[in-house]
Order: sequence, then C-alpha cells, then structure tokens
Amino acid sequence: MALRVPGFLAAGVACGIKDGGALDLAVIASERPAVGAAVFTRNRVPGAPIRVSRPRARRGRVRAVVVNSGISNVATGERGCRDAREMTAAVGRELEIPAGEVLVSSTGVIGVPLPMRRILRGIPMAVRALSPAGWNRAARAILTTDLRPKLVHQNAAGFALLGIAKGSGMTMPNMATMLAYLVTDLAIERSWLSGVLREVVDSTFNRLSIDGETSTSDSVAVMANGAAGNRPIEAGSRRGPEFVRSLAAVCQELVEKIAADGEGVTRLADVVVSGARSNAHADRIARKIANSILVKTALFGSDPNYGRLVQAAGAAGVPIEVGRLGVRVGGVWLLRNGVPVGGTKALRRAERAMKQRRVELAIVVGSGAGRATLLTCDLSYEYVRINAEYTT
Amino acid sequence: MALRVPGFLAAGVACGIKDGGALDLAVIASERPAVGAAVFTRNRVPGAPIRVSRPRARRGRVRAVVVNSGISNVATGERGCRDAREMTAAVGRELEIPAGEVLVSSTGVIGVPLPMRRILRGIPMAVRALSPAGWNRAARAILTTDLRPKLVHQNAAGFALLGIAKGSGMTMPNMATMLAYLVTDLAIERSWLSGVLREVVDSTFNRLSIDGETSTSDSVAVMANGAAGNRPIEAGSRRGPEFVRSLAAVCQELVEKIAADGEGVTRLADVVVSGARSNAHADRIARKIANSILVKTALFGSDPNYGRLVQAAGAAGVPIEVGRLGVRVGGVWLLRNGVPVGGTKALRRAERAMKQRRVELAIVVGSGAGRATLLTCDLSYEYVRINAEYTT
Repeated sequence: MALRVPGFLAAGVACGIKDGGALDLAVIASERPAVGAAVFTRNRVPGAPIRVSRPRARRGRVRAVVVNSGISNVATGERGCRDAREMTAAVGRELEIPAGEVLVSSTGVIGVPLPMRRILRGIPMAVRALSPAGWNRAARAILTTDLRPKLVHQNAAGFALLGIAKGSGMTMPNMATMLAYLVTDLAIERSWLSGVLREVVDSTFNRLSIDGETSTSDSVAVMANGAAGNRPIEAGSRRGPEFVRSLAAVCQELVEKIAADGEGVTRLADVVVSGARSNAHADRIARKIANSILVKTALFGSDPNYGRLVQAAGAAGVPIEVGRLGVRVGGVWLLRNGVPVGGTKALRRAERAMKQRRVELAIVVGSGAGRATLLTCDLSYEYVRINAEYTT
Repeated sequence: MALRVPGFLAAGVACGIKDGGALDLAVIASERPAVGAAVFTRNRVPGAPIRVSRPRARRGRVRAVVVNSGISNVATGERGCRDAREMTAAVGRELEIPAGEVLVSSTGVIGVPLPMRRILRGIPMAVRALSPAGWNRAARAILTTDLRPKLVHQNAAGFALLGIAKGSGMTMPNMATMLAYLVTDLAIERSWLSGVLREVVDSTFNRLSIDGETSTSDSVAVMANGAAGNRPIEAGSRRGPEFVRSLAAVCQELVEKIAADGEGVTRLADVVVSGARSNAHADRIARKIANSILVKTALFGSDPNYGRLVQAAGAAGVPIEVGRLGVRVGGVWLLRNGVPVGGTKALRRAERAMKQRRVELAIVVGSGAGRATLLTCDLSYEYVRINAEYTT
C-alpha cells in the first residue's frame, strides 16, 4: 500500500535519549543489498557520524541507516567517532550485514557524549520493530525542534520513492540544515546515483535558508535496492530523467515541509534575483537577502521595505547597476531603474501581499543574465524565544 | 571649556523631517579653512550623499558637514544626487564657502525623496544656530532609532579632539553602520590624515557588528583646522603617533557607545578568535560567530552554548583543526582539544558569566598565529519588535 517501498523497512523507537518516552531512534534498512549515496554538510566541524559515514557513502554500498535525535555527537572528540562506529556495528550485528554498509546520523545538542548504554539497548529494539509500514514512526524519531514529521511518498510508473526529513532551525545554504533519507526500489548504478543526488540537493535543499546557519550534522542519503527488477539505471539510461524528476520533486516537497515548519515561522518568501552578471553573483545576492535579519524582521512585520532588500543586495559584495535596480514585492513594482514607483498605493498593495503566508521578493540588480532563487522565512519573536531557551 | 574645539562650530535644529519637533538637521563647520578625510560604506548601493561626498573627501578640503536624519536619500535616482548637492550648495551659500568643501550625509528611511523645501528652510536656521557649544544638539540631530546621543571629547596635550556618532541598527562589519564626525584643532597634512583615518576605522568601527547588515549610508569623516597653531602633522612627525592614539581612543569610545545603544541590546560580547592560520581567517570566523543569530539568541538567553560557537566557526569556510578546538566563555573553558571539559560545574560558571552585561566568547580554532576580535551583541525580542515595526 501507500507509504511502502518494496524491500525497505523502517522503525522508530524511544530509547531514552529524549525525556517522556519520545521517539528518538530510527533505523531504515533494505532487505536486499542496495547501493547508496549521500551528501553531507560543508561545515568544517562535521559531527562524528559524518566522519564515519562519509567514506562508506563514497564506497556506495549502503544497506541501512541508524539515526538518533536529542544529542548530535558533535565536538565529542575521538570518543564521538568510536560511539558512531559502535552504533553502526550494533545495527550490522542485528541485521547480519557488514557495519561498513550502515550509515549513521545524530542530531540535537552539541558537545554532549551519547548515552551509549541506552542507544545500544535501543538498537535491537528498533531492528525488531522494523516493518514495511514503519516510516511514520521513523520520521518522528529523527525530529528535534520540528513540530511535524516530514514524509513524502511517490508511486511513479513502476517504482516507488519515499523520503523523510528533519529540520527546522539551524537551516541554511551550504547543504540546508537537516537530515533527509530517501529510498527507492529501482536498481540504479551507484556512481550515477551519487552525481544525481548532488545535483538534486543543489537545486532543492540548498535553495532553502531558514536562518543562515550551517549545521554540523546535515546529511541527505539515498538508497536504491533494485526490488523493482529494472535494469540498473545509469548515465544515458532512458529512465534516468524520470527518476531525477521524481527525486527532485520529492526533495522539493520535503524542503517545503521543512520551511513551513521552520522555528517560529509565520511567513515564507521566495527570493528571486535577476539581472546579475552571473548565476553565482545572483546566488550571493539572494543569500544575503534571505539571511538578512532586517529583511526577515520586515517580512515578519509585513513591511514592504524595499530599502532593506536594496541594502542587503548592495552588501553582497558583487557588482550592481544602481540605475537599473528594481524591486517587486508580491508582484507589485516598488522600485524601477533605481527610482521608487507606484507611490503609497503600490506600497499598500505590496503590504497586503506581504500579509499572505507566502510572498515573492524579487530584485533586479542589472542587465545581466544571472538568476537565482532561494526560499526563506521571517524572523519572529517565537524564533528568538525558541533559540534563547533551547540548548541545541 | 569642555565640549569645545577651537575654531569649530556645531548646530542641530528641527526642520520638520521627523514628527513632533525632533531635531533632524545638523551642521558642523570650521571657522577657518580645514582639511578633511572620510571613509564610506562598502555597500554597492551607496546613498546619493555618499556619491556626492566621496570625491570631495578625496580632494581633502573639507570645511563643513550637513546631516539630516529621518530619510536616507538612498534609492532615489538622479534626483537624490541633485538633492544632496543642493543641500551642500545651501550650506556653502550661508557660510560663504565653496559647496565643494561641504560633505553631506542622510540617514533614515530608504527610497523616499527628501522633503527639500523643509531642508532648505532648515539649513539657514542651522547655520544661524552654529555655536562652539552646539555639539550636544548636533549629536542629537543625527540620531534615528538610537536611544542616546553619542559624543566623545578629549583634551590632550595641546589639542582637542571631539567626535559624535549615530548608529544602533543595521550596524556591521564593512564600515560599521553609522555616521561619525570627528574634529580636531590640530594642523594635519591631508593625505596622511586620510591614511590614518582608514587605519583607525579598520581597528575600531570595523570591529563592531550589531546585526551583520551593512548600511548604504555609513560614513566617518574627520576635519582638522589647525587652530592649535602646530606645524602640520605628517608622515614621520613626532606628534603623529599621539594623534593616532587619540583618534583611535575617541573612535573606540564611540563604538562602545554605539554597541551599548544597539537596538534591543541587553548584552555585549567580545568575540575572540585565535589559533587560525591567518588574521584574515580569524576575522572570517569572528564575523560568522558575531553575526550568527543562533549565537546571538543564545547570548540573549545567557546560554553557554559552545556548540553554536563551534557550528558558526565551522561554517566560516576556512580551515579548522578539529582536534584543537577550544571554547572559553566568560573565562571558563568548556571545550579543549575538541572535547568538552569541566562538566556541569563549568557550564554553570559560564552561564553566570553570560548573565553579565558583557561577556567574552573566545574560540581557539587551531595552532596558527591568526587572531581577531569583534564586538557584537545579543538578539532580543526587542530587536525583532523594533525592526518589524520600524520602516528604515
């Protein structure tokens, strides 16, 4: 039925890292050998789980993933790496597969050692609980400050693709802050899968910025187990583009769920930059705007403050043609060719657009062909409250 | 008397840009010819006043400054430049000096044309009000969301140095967001003065970051009129270092006043980065930490969350020796050589330190000699309120 992917099992259990019996340990596994690929944070202080998982993902044989939430296993020294390896060894033992085919993630508070006794008691429980219908519980077990689990499922022509994700704070550009795991029953050649994943992550997760922060634990992994019985998809395969489209669609849907669940988010904005000299320039401007706390507070206050967009664009450090500057908020032009247009009437219309749940903030910075878009959100009292009170 | 600098006059008047009769127009002038230098924002969309003032400052003959608050004259097209020039022409006429020796600044809302009728009525009023004791009113007339005027005066051996500044939001690295004007009665050779100002701004104003935003209007200008009767100070002069020290001290005191008056600020932090491969690397890490909204909300919540410092440092895009990572909060080591130290007792002591009005956040990122410091502040509910409600 829906929410199943042939040959894949999932489970989420409570092993006691979080208080109150909340789910905090997830295992995903393929019943048959599978290939995998992963993309990790570009933060220079990656968590121990990433240091353990990265070479395994590179080898491309991935049959299971184990994830705990509540504690991130970052800044924990050599002990952290030992703990991460031990988690994968426990999963390997229980599933009777090589530990080297198990990836591991941890998310939560930084700098605290993992309670390994609880985790090692939890892993056999999780493996026993593995089921083709366990995705909802797995999706819940990987959450931290998220309000809602994030699960997307697609049954396309002849194959299934399912993704779960986690993320709401500390979410940003260089591999938007989160964990996401995708599984498909297609057979896929692993080096091709790895390239495709990188490409899709760049156009989906990396186009999201909640708060300009890059977590130390970001990971996106995909597994393909071939239960669909197709000839392995590789470069040039007829079915390649179809899979890439599905993967991009599922990832984008996860991105939208993450953005909507951002900490204290009341409003989303699509930042659209055009007219830059290059896409790279446009991207720098889009990130500067998306991460500007003055833009984000204006978004919270529904203030069509195009001056702040201009200020942020100008601070991106790339050339801008001042005489061609344009700003369009919610479809309403407020600045064209460097001069305000439309008067108070336009401002009122833009303000109304900014009261919606989602608004487009478009800026033209010159006559070039460079373009970029980015999804961001507002900065509310609630964001401050959550992050002043919660120890991540 | 105190608060005077021989040969300099200042005034602040209300010309009706702001509501309620608030002071909004300042003029500073030297009674005798003076040299000047200025440093402006690196924002790529500088306001019209900067486009008018920059070449004048470069020529180095500066005898007066006119500043309005309330409206910034940014993103106002060619009209903005005409208006800025007209302001300086009016000051020139009233003072009987060339308009080319007058600098102009505007600060406040972006994208709104200046109410030139009011300003041109206000300039003669301001010139008539010029007085050797007008500094307090001038310091008040340049404010926007600031709560307090910022004025620093130093009477050193044989000369006077006085500075006023404005700035509390949109304050950041590349020429920290603000306006500052400094005057001295020393005679100073102008190209030397220009180099000295750049150097002092780099070590004072540019070491402050309130919110990571770079305003379109940042300007620091200095005038020296020689009323002290000294031989002009130039490169190699015996009195040079003494003047540089005074200038740096006055600028630093203005920086502290700006930081203390930051929008919604409840707490300041000195970010100290050491062990980087170079000072430039350390600077990038310090800025990433100082501008991290997760660090800033932790600062607001007095949460000794060294994980967020580590995360921000890792996101700066420069190399970090993970095994040598150290974090010291308020003098208390929480992480050394990549491993947490001191346990909950250390955390409690660090938390107490973080409840102070000012705290040091030190991070060691390796074994290199690169160092940087930066002054920053917390992110409070009040900051969000001010910036969600106030149209800049």
